[in-house]
Amino acid sequence: MPTTPYNRIAGGSLERVAALSDGVFAVAMTLLVLDLHAPAAAAVHSEGELRQKLLPLLPQLVAYLMSFLTLGIFWVGQQTQLNHFARADRNLAWVHLGFLFAVTLLPFSTSLLAEFIEYRTALLLYWLNIVLLGLMLAGSWLYASRHGLVMEDAPPDLNRLVLGRIVVAQSLYAIGAALCLYSTYLSIAFIVVIQLHYAIAPRTSRWLRY
Amino acid sequence: MPTTPYNRIAGGSLERVAALSDGVFAVAMTLLVLDLHAPAAAAVHSEGELRQKLLPLLPQLVAYLMSFLTLGIFWVGQQTQLNHFARADRNLAWVHLGFLFAVTLLPFSTSLLAEFIEYRTALLLYWLNIVLLGLMLAGSWLYASRHGLVMEDAPPDLNRLVLGRIVVAQSLYAIGAALCLYSTYLSIAFIVVIQLHYAIAPRTSRWLRY
Amino acid sequence: MPTTPYNRIAGGSLERVAALSDGVFAVAMTLLVLDLHAPAAAAVHSEGELRQKLLPLLPQLVAYLMSFLTLGIFWVGQQTQLNHFARADRNLAWVHLGFLFAVTLLPFSTSLLAEFIEYRTALLLYWLNIVLLGLMLAGSWLYASRHGLVMEDAPPDLNRLVLGRIVVAQSLYAIGAALCLYSTYLSIAFIVVIQLHYAIAPRTSRWLRY
Amino acid sequence: MPTTPYNRIAGGSLERVAALSDGVFAVAMTLLVLDLHAPAAAAVHSEGELRQKLLPLLPQLVAYLMSFLTLGIFWVGQQTQLNHFARADRNLAWVHLGFLFAVTLLPFSTSLLAEFIEYRTALLLYWLNIVLLGLMLAGSWLYASRHGLVMEDAPPDLNRLVLGRIVVAQSLYAIGAALCLYSTYLSIAFIVVIQLHYAIAPRTSRWLRY
Repeated sequence: MPTTPYNRIAGGSLERVAALSDGVFAVAMTLLVLDLHAPAAAAVHSEGELRQKLLPLLPQLVAYLMSFLTLGIFWVGQQTQLNHFARADRNLAWVHLGFLFAVTLLPFSTSLLAEFIEYRTALLLYWLNIVLLGLMLAGSWLYASRHGLVMEDAPPDLNRLVLGRIVVAQSLYAIGAALCLYSTYLSIAFIVVIQLHYAIAPRTSRWLRY
Repeated sequence: MPTTPYNRIAGGSLERVAALSDGVFAVAMTLLVLDLHAPAAAAVHSEGELRQKLLPLLPQLVAYLMSFLTLGIFWVGQQTQLNHFARADRNLAWVHLGFLFAVTLLPFSTSLLAEFIEYRTALLLYWLNIVLLGLMLAGSWLYASRHGLVMEDAPPDLNRLVLGRIVVAQSLYAIGAALCLYSTYLSIAFIVVIQLHYAIAPRTSRWLRY
Repeated sequence: MPTTPYNRIAGGSLERVAALSDGVFAVAMTLLVLDLHAPAAAAVHSEGELRQKLLPLLPQLVAYLMSFLTLGIFWVGQQTQLNHFARADRNLAWVHLGFLFAVTLLPFSTSLLAEFIEYRTALLLYWLNIVLLGLMLAGSWLYASRHGLVMEDAPPDLNRLVLGRIVVAQSLYAIGAALCLYSTYLSIAFIVVIQLHYAIAPRTSRWLRY
Repeated sequence: MPTTPYNRIAGGSLERVAALSDGVFAVAMTLLVLDLHAPAAAAVHSEGELRQKLLPLLPQLVAYLMSFLTLGIFWVGQQTQLNHFARADRNLAWVHLGFLFAVTLLPFSTSLLAEFIEYRTALLLYWLNIVLLGLMLAGSWLYASRHGLVMEDAPPDLNRLVLGRIVVAQSLYAIGAALCLYSTYLSIAFIVVIQLHYAIAPRTSRWLRY
């Protein structure tokens, strides 16, 4: 009897971590595109001129697409964890608040990268943001599995899969970041390809899929 | 017994796709109007001048109303699908993330159209945004129905209704877009009338209603 | 048996109308204050100057407080209705989308009023926004009660209370708006007092309380 | 029998207060970083220049981190209360709307502090914002516990813990604010240390922990 209300309270916490996360992700995803501005009307006098003024927005659009993919991947990753947690506690809530802080930084990192797409500094800061996201997500899993917050009926190899997925993904991101020694465009292309692979490819190896 | 936790997990995913979607739609709907700016106080010295400065905002308001209707129609459409899904999987989540990416683009397409309301380029980009929304929604249904994610007790003609509705609506949008050969205002009027019909008309044919 | 899945679907719709509404209200409430800008650092050289530059923000802050109260009142009003609905249908969803459109207009109406606080035009547009909110809320109740969407065990005098509350409140708002013939400040003071009364006064008459 | 629907209605209210709160917190948290602007591309011609232009953003980033921690602490505090409430009523909803108003002010207080980090006026306004958050949260608990809204099976010393936590925290914030007599940087450092302690330290005294 005394456990019923406790579980209910704890379950509520988990729900509210999920609700706050969905809210932060939703705002961050929508704000990404907010930096895309329509060209000034005064400078446009024909259809041709409008198309010409819109062309420079294309690389920015690629940066936003990349960040939307980043947010999507980490949203799915966080959701996978939350779906396997039986309950939350105060510390786990704070790990996820740290994770969400990294999420709120991404629109800034993205607009920095979109503005300075050829600068290694911008690309490395963007990569640091991704590293921070990965660290917090790994921390969430390590904390939860060590403090008995994971559901008892979770698949036994879940631990290996969740952590393995983070390590593999972060290694690929690190390689992508290192490619900026040659060209930041190469880095971005590499990262976008990895991310599209995560998002689209349905029949890849379990390591990548989870 | 082993199926109960699985369903619970999957149900949780579906809920979080819905929660993220509601968040993205809520932010996008509210941001639409954010581009409406009050005239500068320094340029206004009388009630008459204020009214005069507010008049040019009217066509912009029509563009925002049209986009709000667009978002409303696709929100209802997505909701109809989610209400009939028994569960979600990772791929379905990504189809809906793609759908949400199209949603986040709409405030940009709208401000572009509001700024360049007489330009076919702006109107066609706006239309492409609507096409993308329709494609993702059709993809969501096709994927879900082919992978057994639709509830077993869903009405038998749901498949025909959902896809039929998307095809009819997209055909009408395409006709609306084609009308820009004559005038972009004609296109916008046509699209607004279709959308108001979808939103308001309660006793139309089943094709349009679903 | 066939009614269980149907109710579940309809219940889901009601939840998503509530979720979308909470999202739109949350964004609108937070955006209200977004127009409050810190003074430019370059123009400030002492604590006294900073305080002097902050003073002109006070009337704006009053306008934002008024709008937050407006949103709070209509959020509570919508919630009261949704709590007594057994289910939603497509038309009811659209009435609430119309209601939410009026919500998204409020940050614009507010910034217009904050910028032109002495102009009757700004005050009347603000009032029209409140009228639109009231109309949609009344429409929601009328539609739901006529189409059997209200819970069967709802209090029998609920109909009278909900509609009575809207009529009384809108009458008071209309009086407040009419006061702008004397002074817009008088209008605003009157409206703020009504709203604080709604928000704070716990033991007022049932008409006002519901 | 007549109590079941009532509880269901009341429970719904509590859920919607939580949902609106999660939305407002999510938007406020994400908007904090929105004031961080990438340097203008035109003024940057090398990696070194970009790094030089990014350095001045560091103190701003500290202010944003502090505000994110503030929001996180008050989100956890509000959640602890809501998790122990059996139901909500109209007055409790308004106390939380007041709390949320203070939340929506924080992005403004933060940008003011980030812009005028050496000005006591900015720091004291920021502190007043925190005081307002604390007052509303204390008011929420006092109202709920006096009107029988707290769950009956809540821990008996919960009252002492919740109020004690607010009093201790607010006392520490007041000390932090008072330190601005020496230096606003000292105030900020003190407040950030308190907040990190709340967020991270897992084995502190119960007073601080709850």
